[in-house]
Amino acid sequence: MKLRWGLIGGGEGSQIGGTHRIASGLDGAFEFVAGALDIDPARGRAYAEKLGVATDRAYGDWREMLAAEKGRTDRLDLVTIATPNSSHYEITKAFLAAGFDVLCEKPLTTTVEEAEDIVRTARAARRICAVNYGYSGYALVRHARAMVARGDLGKIRVVMAEFAFGHHADAADADNPRVRWRYDPKLAGVSSVLADAGIHALHLATFVTGQEIEKLSADFASTVAGRELEDDAFVAFRTTGGAVGRLWASAVALGRMHGLTIQVFGEQGGLRWEQERPNQLYWTPLRGRTEIIERGTGGLSPEADRASRVTIGHAEGFFGAFGNIYADLAEVLRASKEGRAPDPLALSYPKAEDGLRSIAAIHAAARSARERGVWIET
Amino acid sequence: MKLRWGLIGGGEGSQIGGTHRIASGLDGAFEFVAGALDIDPARGRAYAEKLGVATDRAYGDWREMLAAEKGRTDRLDLVTIATPNSSHYEITKAFLAAGFDVLCEKPLTTTVEEAEDIVRTARAARRICAVNYGYSGYALVRHARAMVARGDLGKIRVVMAEFAFGHHADAADADNPRVRWRYDPKLAGVSSVLADAGIHALHLATFVTGQEIEKLSADFASTVAGRELEDDAFVAFRTTGGAVGRLWASAVALGRMHGLTIQVFGEQGGLRWEQERPNQLYWTPLRGRTEIIERGTGGLSPEADRASRVTIGHAEGFFGAFGNIYADLAEVLRASKEGRAPDPLALSYPKAEDGLRSIAAIHAAARSARERGVWIET
Amino acid sequence: MKLRWGLIGGGEGSQIGGTHRIASGLDGAFEFVAGALDIDPARGRAYAEKLGVATDRAYGDWREMLAAEKGRTDRLDLVTIATPNSSHYEITKAFLAAGFDVLCEKPLTTTVEEAEDIVRTARAARRICAVNYGYSGYALVRHARAMVARGDLGKIRVVMAEFAFGHHADAADADNPRVRWRYDPKLAGVSSVLADAGIHALHLATFVTGQEIEKLSADFASTVAGRELEDDAFVAFRTTGGAVGRLWASAVALGRMHGLTIQVFGEQGGLRWEQERPNQLYWTPLRGRTEIIERGTGGLSPEADRASRVTIGHAEGFFGAFGNIYADLAEVLRASKEGRAPDPLALSYPKAEDGLRSIAAIHAAARSARERGVWIET
Amino acid sequence: MKLRWGLIGGGEGSQIGGTHRIASGLDGAFEFVAGALDIDPARGRAYAEKLGVATDRAYGDWREMLAAEKGRTDRLDLVTIATPNSSHYEITKAFLAAGFDVLCEKPLTTTVEEAEDIVRTARAARRICAVNYGYSGYALVRHARAMVARGDLGKIRVVMAEFAFGHHADAADADNPRVRWRYDPKLAGVSSVLADAGIHALHLATFVTGQEIEKLSADFASTVAGRELEDDAFVAFRTTGGAVGRLWASAVALGRMHGLTIQVFGEQGGLRWEQERPNQLYWTPLRGRTEIIERGTGGLSPEADRASRVTIGHAEGFFGAFGNIYADLAEVLRASKEGRAPDPLALSYPKAEDGLRSIAAIHAAARSARERGVWIET
Repeated sequence: MKLRWGLIGGGEGSQIGGTHRIASGLDGAFEFVAGALDIDPARGRAYAEKLGVATDRAYGDWREMLAAEKGRTDRLDLVTIATPNSSHYEITKAFLAAGFDVLCEKPLTTTVEEAEDIVRTARAARRICAVNYGYSGYALVRHARAMVARGDLGKIRVVMAEFAFGHHADAADADNPRVRWRYDPKLAGVSSVLADAGIHALHLATFVTGQEIEKLSADFASTVAGRELEDDAFVAFRTTGGAVGRLWASAVALGRMHGLTIQVFGEQGGLRWEQERPNQLYWTPLRGRTEIIERGTGGLSPEADRASRVTIGHAEGFFGAFGNIYADLAEVLRASKEGRAPDPLALSYPKAEDGLRSIAAIHAAARSARERGVWIET
Repeated sequence: MKLRWGLIGGGEGSQIGGTHRIASGLDGAFEFVAGALDIDPARGRAYAEKLGVATDRAYGDWREMLAAEKGRTDRLDLVTIATPNSSHYEITKAFLAAGFDVLCEKPLTTTVEEAEDIVRTARAARRICAVNYGYSGYALVRHARAMVARGDLGKIRVVMAEFAFGHHADAADADNPRVRWRYDPKLAGVSSVLADAGIHALHLATFVTGQEIEKLSADFASTVAGRELEDDAFVAFRTTGGAVGRLWASAVALGRMHGLTIQVFGEQGGLRWEQERPNQLYWTPLRGRTEIIERGTGGLSPEADRASRVTIGHAEGFFGAFGNIYADLAEVLRASKEGRAPDPLALSYPKAEDGLRSIAAIHAAARSARERGVWIET
Repeated sequence: MKLRWGLIGGGEGSQIGGTHRIASGLDGAFEFVAGALDIDPARGRAYAEKLGVATDRAYGDWREMLAAEKGRTDRLDLVTIATPNSSHYEITKAFLAAGFDVLCEKPLTTTVEEAEDIVRTARAARRICAVNYGYSGYALVRHARAMVARGDLGKIRVVMAEFAFGHHADAADADNPRVRWRYDPKLAGVSSVLADAGIHALHLATFVTGQEIEKLSADFASTVAGRELEDDAFVAFRTTGGAVGRLWASAVALGRMHGLTIQVFGEQGGLRWEQERPNQLYWTPLRGRTEIIERGTGGLSPEADRASRVTIGHAEGFFGAFGNIYADLAEVLRASKEGRAPDPLALSYPKAEDGLRSIAAIHAAARSARERGVWIET
Repeated sequence: MKLRWGLIGGGEGSQIGGTHRIASGLDGAFEFVAGALDIDPARGRAYAEKLGVATDRAYGDWREMLAAEKGRTDRLDLVTIATPNSSHYEITKAFLAAGFDVLCEKPLTTTVEEAEDIVRTARAARRICAVNYGYSGYALVRHARAMVARGDLGKIRVVMAEFAFGHHADAADADNPRVRWRYDPKLAGVSSVLADAGIHALHLATFVTGQEIEKLSADFASTVAGRELEDDAFVAFRTTGGAVGRLWASAVALGRMHGLTIQVFGEQGGLRWEQERPNQLYWTPLRGRTEIIERGTGGLSPEADRASRVTIGHAEGFFGAFGNIYADLAEVLRASKEGRAPDPLALSYPKAEDGLRSIAAIHAAARSARERGVWIET
């Protein structure tokens, strides 16, 4: 019996919608049965039907969807929210409050207060509120986390995270609507490239080390004329476990494509992983040689094995990673239905608390950047 | 309305079955409605039901499935055959003859005569018989083919194809049943690593250049004691368009993971693509610098654009590539239902003729290797 | 007629001495004729003689060398100072004042005041005082600088420089004398990894962009117990030309070998160069594809051509780069002897002013780090 | 006391001359004291003097040099012959017969008979006749050889060697004199790209495995119109130790720069080394992970340590490798002068016997290619 899945946002032509549909369906665990896919009700209904959603569950907007779905006996098992950032809070809160389990795209909300409210709401409703830091679904990211957790690296000393690309380097894009809003504080909030991309690097830093950000100092720069928000950010931080953090995020780094990279250095060894080559993890034990850990190799952690679908050497990429977030949720949802404890390995998906912490870090960084790099506790 | 899809073989624990289920479902075009998944009827039925197939279409074997399915009004739109190699011929022929469209795993058959018979059968029945050379589904492989076709490389001079890995390098695997049969002529036929892996490299060489193999000379070696078939093969060839071909396939190349690589050199430039890093294609124009063509970049060929689902920098991997074969078939099947011509870009999926040619090349190579490298026309 | 070269420091077993001897001799321009190679006079004399220096010019210490050499008619054309850092100032000043041209190892001095004094002394004496930021001798580093200078990148927005390695990651080295002194403020001064390694990255950032550091904010961390100086540093800076700078230096980054990397992003394109793969420069023009610029290719800048000795594809490495510093000095010295203007391409070797600026930046960074990241003008 | 070194060929503008001067001087062991550098006597004399050779040892041609040098008491310790290939035999033989030790550029001769004669001559004269397969001087090539020799790989199964570049891919070069002669049998002999470049790959295959070529089958192709000799070659071979060999050489591989690569696969592990990234050796033990062996790491073989001059992470390149051949020769020559046994580690430089074997293999390959790939014993 497949789980029933609904999607809000992700209309025709959006990439994120397609990715969620692929990821949710990858293992055959979820069936796409309801959606409110577009800001234009007619277009949204038509697209949902085109994708195979029954007419009575192809909704014009999320309020209509919420009203109708909460009364059904074949209720949705999971609702994914992939609307513009500013609406995440309201929609997520409404669905949680009505008793639905939710997977919200990042960022969870735009303010810290909203994120705190979501955490409270989810707890009160005893509902899942996952946040789609999808890169944490890569098998070798999970293996890196497992290696840190089991002590292979010893105490963590330094974590270096980067997310650099050049997609916003073209000054001629000043009036391009797909770019412009990202640098407008009224639409994007207190931060641009850090909130949009750097947040993934921050999340990976905490995900892999198993530590939270304790304090930070930031430097923001707007390098393209006319931008009010940063297109290049540099953040120094310290974690709850005493590690030193470094982060660089840039949207003007011509030549970097989607350069999300994480390096973790501990007393007993160092790790390096790059999102563009996700099937290799470089591991250098203290006094030893660098070893290439290949996804799909025998002898990996249960966390990595669970997150792999094909044998070594096949490029298991983005869809597999996002699919792993859905695989975790499917297991947790099924376990709940079946009245049993979920597989503990399924519990590493990012949660509302992670979303809250990320947003708090972004806001702290924006304040530090405004105040000439002062260190701020998060 | 989704297309109805059935699967033969690919039972619990098999990787190929999971890959076909993911690939067929990736774009939501196919629904998995019937299957005969296991040599053990009860196990096959149970697994199909577990995967959501209705009880009456969860079959015990392919004959039962054929008998039942051919009488249904909600007939299968596509049947995928992922059984052991020796049964491909019989099952494929039976389904084609009964009027089903088929996607057969490679190799299409074990003998040239059988492959010829499949080609004849498919033509007589006017049915699709596709063969799963799935690596040809990668966006940048298709882009390479498009570049050659539109003349970017000029006349092709040399094509170098490799498929090397080390999975059969362990002499202690002599009695490992998953390895042993591959080197037993009674089970594997005239060739091992060339027929099993090198065949993909051969197919890519012809797919990218748009040329067929005209003649070849081969050297086979069995480097692990006790093997009757080759675990390392070297093939020199010439194509119908006058290009020089070189191929190396090895199963004892420790350190190569799944090293399928193709290089094409023409009068006007050279291309290099590696399966393990499928999102980059290296292009060196004559008298110019090497450029890195990234999957998802603007300005690629329509063939590449059609085969991409996410933007630049995301590692679109194995599932996307295999999914593209299914996307092609979905388009062709839908066009047929709708009485219209299919999108010409959907027509590059590998066909029975490709399967026949590959098998003929393998048999010629095996003969050349036996006859001290004599050149053989194919 | 070869130029006469003398060396101070670089005794038996030291790597830096061997590198200077190789680099100075690489093009046959300099002859090694005098040396004071060791803190132990007898050992220094013996080693110099073993290396072919005449007995009367194999000195016991630098004062003896200075006294003897300044009276000779076959005076040294160039003296290289490769002694421990704390003695650079005194020796360099003495030789400059006595009318010798000098190449001093980095850092030029340990304090800003000393560096200022060296600059004044060199100017007053009208002598060359070069500083060995040898990585600036790589052909493609010089090409990158030429590309920036001729406007290929447009206005520079961001420069990212890294120098990370793991050589000091072993806590068991606490008592290793080769490591310990580096973290002792009494011996190493105000900074460890930034002053020792990061200084090269800082220099490259200014060398390639042609801009100086205007202000900076730093975060230092001592991640190994017992260290008083930083083994990991993060510096944000702004340049005189308005570029944003980011720098990471680490001595505990297990898995990074000698990870000196520089990336420069401008309005019209981005560059990336890695010291460990010095023969490739990655160039991504705005709206274009990444191109791999190979050392030795036709069509490079005169700066790059002059700094190459062999054709494309040969790994021209460390010795060639350091040799280019000596090649520049040889040209300038010969031009002076011949009463002609030197080749302008020979003038990019690092000078005392560069040494001064680097030291000023290090001291500013150390102060910023002490003062919680406050921005400091340099 | 430096060794006295002379050079024949390598005139102004030649790359090979500069490389030999750098390599011979790298460690300060040889002094360049005599030369006959150019086919034009006056130009050769002038250039030698410009390079610091005394007037009486700056010769107009090699006969003049031989006549004068053999009578001197300060006789040359080593003569390097870097003239056009067709003159190697005559000059090498004359100098050997006159009692000089010789380093001859590859190929040693153009025919097998000549090479046999050189071997006989050198033995009779009890002189060193080294052949400059300079890539065997790379530290990690020597480490690979040491690993094979000490049994790390177990019995060798397969060796794959490549040397591919695109420098002769431009059809417009048909009349370019620097290219044309290479494809003219009257000037280049029986083979072009195999004899010129592939020979290095063949040598490395034998050098690293410690085995000789026993038999081979070849396929040659001339892919650019008008060429009489091959610009692309494929050779299958078997070694004396029972290993299977594969070799690809190409001069039309646009995008490959100087693609000399060697892979060795044994029962217990596999190795991979690429000339363009010479400071890393990839090692995959059976059932283990790929490890990156870095030049300069502790714990390498004595052979690798002896061939390294700088610490880990510095790009020790081409000059260092060629310098190692001279370092070997310096040790052997000094040991001979001092009446002691040379360091056994200095004995791996390539010798006339290696030159002979390579030439025999090239001739056998050319014959096999003419005879449709027939296997030929070498």
